[in-house]
Amino acid sequence: LNASDYRRVTPGIVDELRRICGTEFVFSDGDKKLKKYARDKVPEAYGHMPEVAILPKTAREISRVVKLANREKIPITPRAAGSGLSGGAVPVYGGILLSVERMNDIVEVDAQNLMAVVEPGVVTNRLDEVLQPHGLFFAGYPLSEEICFIGGNVAENAGGGRAVKYGVTGRYIQGLEIVAPTGEIIQLGGKRVKDVTGYNLVQLMIGSEGTLGIFTKIFIKLLPRPTVRQAILVLFEDPETAIAVVPEVMTAGRLVPTSIEFMDGFSFCMTARALKERFPYEKIGAALLFEVDGTHLSVVAENAASIRRICRERGALEEYLAETDREIERFWRIRKQIPWDILRYTSHQSVEDIVVPIGSIPQALSKLKQIGEKYGVDIPVLGHAGDGNLHAIPLKSSASTVAQWEEILPSLLRDIYAMTAELGGTISGEHGIGHKRRDYMSLVMSQAHLDMMRKIKRALDPNNILNPGKIFSWI
Amino acid sequence: LNASDYRRVTPGIVDELRRICGTEFVFSDGDKKLKKYARDKVPEAYGHMPEVAILPKTAREISRVVKLANREKIPITPRAAGSGLSGGAVPVYGGILLSVERMNDIVEVDAQNLMAVVEPGVVTNRLDEVLQPHGLFFAGYPLSEEICFIGGNVAENAGGGRAVKYGVTGRYIQGLEIVAPTGEIIQLGGKRVKDVTGYNLVQLMIGSEGTLGIFTKIFIKLLPRPTVRQAILVLFEDPETAIAVVPEVMTAGRLVPTSIEFMDGFSFCMTARALKERFPYEKIGAALLFEVDGTHLSVVAENAASIRRICRERGALEEYLAETDREIERFWRIRKQIPWDILRYTSHQSVEDIVVPIGSIPQALSKLKQIGEKYGVDIPVLGHAGDGNLHAIPLKSSASTVAQWEEILPSLLRDIYAMTAELGGTISGEHGIGHKRRDYMSLVMSQAHLDMMRKIKRALDPNNILNPGKIFSWI
Repeated sequence: LNASDYRRVTPGIVDELRRICGTEFVFSDGDKKLKKYARDKVPEAYGHMPEVAILPKTAREISRVVKLANREKIPITPRAAGSGLSGGAVPVYGGILLSVERMNDIVEVDAQNLMAVVEPGVVTNRLDEVLQPHGLFFAGYPLSEEICFIGGNVAENAGGGRAVKYGVTGRYIQGLEIVAPTGEIIQLGGKRVKDVTGYNLVQLMIGSEGTLGIFTKIFIKLLPRPTVRQAILVLFEDPETAIAVVPEVMTAGRLVPTSIEFMDGFSFCMTARALKERFPYEKIGAALLFEVDGTHLSVVAENAASIRRICRERGALEEYLAETDREIERFWRIRKQIPWDILRYTSHQSVEDIVVPIGSIPQALSKLKQIGEKYGVDIPVLGHAGDGNLHAIPLKSSASTVAQWEEILPSLLRDIYAMTAELGGTISGEHGIGHKRRDYMSLVMSQAHLDMMRKIKRALDPNNILNPGKIFSWI
Repeated sequence: LNASDYRRVTPGIVDELRRICGTEFVFSDGDKKLKKYARDKVPEAYGHMPEVAILPKTAREISRVVKLANREKIPITPRAAGSGLSGGAVPVYGGILLSVERMNDIVEVDAQNLMAVVEPGVVTNRLDEVLQPHGLFFAGYPLSEEICFIGGNVAENAGGGRAVKYGVTGRYIQGLEIVAPTGEIIQLGGKRVKDVTGYNLVQLMIGSEGTLGIFTKIFIKLLPRPTVRQAILVLFEDPETAIAVVPEVMTAGRLVPTSIEFMDGFSFCMTARALKERFPYEKIGAALLFEVDGTHLSVVAENAASIRRICRERGALEEYLAETDREIERFWRIRKQIPWDILRYTSHQSVEDIVVPIGSIPQALSKLKQIGEKYGVDIPVLGHAGDGNLHAIPLKSSASTVAQWEEILPSLLRDIYAMTAELGGTISGEHGIGHKRRDYMSLVMSQAHLDMMRKIKRALDPNNILNPGKIFSWI
């Protein structure tokens, strides 16, 4: 269905939704609470009001709502914490916004099977707290772990700060209970770490941005919790020298650190100064933050020492070792604070999420610089260098108007994405496509590739009910 | 299409295939070479002759063949090494057998990006030899590594002996070039370790058993090669005591060994005796083989010592430590030889591949014993205990006829699969469904779940050209 073919949410339908979810969990037109569901963390221009927001509690309620929506031809947009950065939770065609915020039970921690079962509305950090006394952990670790919901992490296949060693969210998801786009409740996978019983629908669902199913239960594989960690903050005169170190650590050093985070000089100095940290700011052109973890202090310390040695040999200005949780968090605080400080700089910005092969990061950085110069904008860059995943953040120049910024943005983004494609990369590593990047997909994939996705969507969601307008256009 | 709707391979079509692939690479009716393509490692009863076998060399050739097959309504069965155990490479409807044996180039080892690009016909061990001097390795490791092709490993999402620590094949596949069921050549993913650009079609292809695409290039993520390993062979009086140790090592011991292999007393003693190893056979009821690896001898040795301690404390009879490659391979040889020795015992057997949550292995073993008694057959069990993946191998009793064996087999398998489902497990962990297990899928998944798979198959392969008759029935 296209926008014009959807039906409106009538008062009769609102009544039916109230009977399914309970009156107090349905916010309809005119309700002040409706507004918060109009967007996630994308800029306001990408927002859109839902006609009604509902907060169901069970898979059965969701199943009934999905069947109703198919009968009435009304779109449903699922929403987790709303911390997404591509508009995945924006109800671009209005209709029903379905928030999983009340489905926040940690159903089970099964230590014997190294599995946790959670509902989609569980905050990532809360699960971590519950697992700590068991000596276990969930290695998926978005940097928004204090607010994001696990359901959203799965829907976007969230990455984050530990992916170099541990991979992204999807590696740890062994099963999902979903409500299918046509309303059936289906369990895919479960408490088993190997499964080749037909197509891998669990992995198809992961990263599908709410377009192929609504997750109602998530089966997570747990690992023994590392007991020791150290971090090394390394300063460089220029980004090229910093970035050249990254593949060296992994190939020559034969190390797989937990994290390798990159911050350009602009970003690092801005935030470190604001946090009143003392560094030789006049010389800093870039910074890397490494973390290593494990179960043996001697090994972790040796790995940290190897990283320091490689950085020193390859032209680092300074390296600082952090051995306690408090010191380590102090380094991470700089990294985590940067996006917020950049946001304070100007709200007219575009948080990008490109990925390139790690060996191509230096070229990507120099091309980003050229693109910035072409459009007369600053493009601070930070991100997960060990994965080749860079958050480039074009900022409106103070010399130009909002209208001018909005005029250049599409072509600026197109240049960034086309450059990424040329380097063998892609336009999103962990934030997703949503509607923000939807119309750029053909820059990184063939029409036949896009058509495969469309065919799957049409086969599973013939009425285009679940999160329409995301990832690709219907036609 | 169903069997009756496919067209036959005519002499005209054989000529066209010869023009595409070259005369010497097309074996048609009457050619002696055709026979070897009638089955993989499933018993003879599951075999079926193709009408023609072709050995293409390029993706373009395959694309032309697939378009021809769609035009003429002829099924294509892709085949790698033919070492599969579920009939995935058996051309059950005749038609065209497409072998990738000539597509065996290691296209690239890109050490800087920790990536290898290979064609599907590369033997797994050959890649390992090429990676060794780079200090890198591909952590996918089926126990048939000396014969299996990487293309087949990807098609079945092969597991094997290192999956406890490293996961299965699919974890390392970052990209695929495929020929789609309608003939387009499409590259999915590539040299990047993070990618949320739309649906994860790479993971959808992995384990799809040749029903959704023919792989023509495979992008593999490499890891720094571990430099130290040790193995511990532990003997027990009974399987219950052995199996109870497995979750203990991972939870109480907080260890993730590389391998935890289980062998029941029957299997272990049969093969160890044949290999003239000296053990206290009269007491042995089960054996576990652990391997640990890493980059630090002290840590590997400490881990091995922890495993020995846990086993001793929990009633092991004997433990033997292997510290050199030669000693380690001597232990592995027992494990790897068992299936071949069992095959010598009788060819009337069924190699099963069930998976249960690791905590449920003891129950699975006792249920398997009951099922064996019910049907009057021996069911030796061995397998990847650390993943809950058990190869139970029902054997025809010497007291019964082949006809009797064939009569009881379907109901015997049904009992095994139903028991697995009851324990929260499934019917295949690494061997796949093929046509061998096709009609049992509804024991482990709902009709709605099966229908999702069928919908995807129909959407991507509307003429049911690629490997029909596998995983599920068309209707």
